[in-house]
Amino acid sequence: MKLSQGVEWALHCVTLLAQGDPGTVASRHTLAGWYGLPEAYLAKHLKSLVRAGVLHAGSGPRGGFRLARPPEEITALEVVESIDGPSSAFVCTEIRQNGACAAPPEECVRRCAIDRLMQEADAAWRERLRRTPVSELAAGLPAPLRGRAREWLAR
Amino acid sequence: MKLSQGVEWALHCVTLLAQGDPGTVASRHTLAGWYGLPEAYLAKHLKSLVRAGVLHAGSGPRGGFRLARPPEEITALEVVESIDGPSSAFVCTEIRQNGACAAPPEECVRRCAIDRLMQEADAAWRERLRRTPVSELAAGLPAPLRGRAREWLAR
Repeated sequence: MKLSQGVEWALHCVTLLAQGDPGTVASRHTLAGWYGLPEAYLAKHLKSLVRAGVLHAGSGPRGGFRLARPPEEITALEVVESIDGPSSAFVCTEIRQNGACAAPPEECVRRCAIDRLMQEADAAWRERLRRTPVSELAAGLPAPLRGRAREWLAR
Repeated sequence: MKLSQGVEWALHCVTLLAQGDPGTVASRHTLAGWYGLPEAYLAKHLKSLVRAGVLHAGSGPRGGFRLARPPEEITALEVVESIDGPSSAFVCTEIRQNGACAAPPEECVRRCAIDRLMQEADAAWRERLRRTPVSELAAGLPAPLRGRAREWLAR
């Protein structure tokens, strides 16, 4: 089970923007350059963040990306789900209804106990990410790094 | 992010064995037949469960698979990790050390705030699975299904 690398890039880019003044706009080039990421690959993930309402994309000479809402109101879960989607890592294929087991419909009214457990574990994972706004991630960075990030964004 | 289908099969097979009398042995054919699973594919996952110490594989005329320990002592997490391994779904590639960002070693003594959060979420996922023994999964099945499972194992 692996999350796509885009999750790491997206969390970092959103955390970078969360370090700027409110309304800070950064181009794809600025975001990619800060972490040495390949711009063309990053573009896809930035689009996903815009589609999910985490970032706002402006056009024109002052175009670029900014947080769509204050960083206190954007959760890490939203960023992760922008890239990886909201689907659980466990997909129940109802094997209890196959083979010699073949549970009849009246025994399958309740979701399978195994599926229930796996969905509870998935919910615990998401809940941990939901509790952390990206402002908190930004605040957790070393002060010198935060200072340099603000300079980079202000160029 | 998707778990391999083997996780579902392994959880079900171990839960089936947990419904038998202590020491119940079942062949690969018996386990596969109960859920209508392809025997050749299931074989790989059964081997992983043996390697992880969840199942014991016997040889000879009375050969087959049995739980290596009482079902109260085998957690759902052990079964999941037998198939999927213990690695977190999030892999930090330390992009904070690249590009214009390039945090120097003295700013990287602490793990990255993003990595810390993602590992906490992973731990919450595993903790939920660690709290559930496979005996509990077996007990959560409808009584008629449990009865048929015991008959199938006793054949």
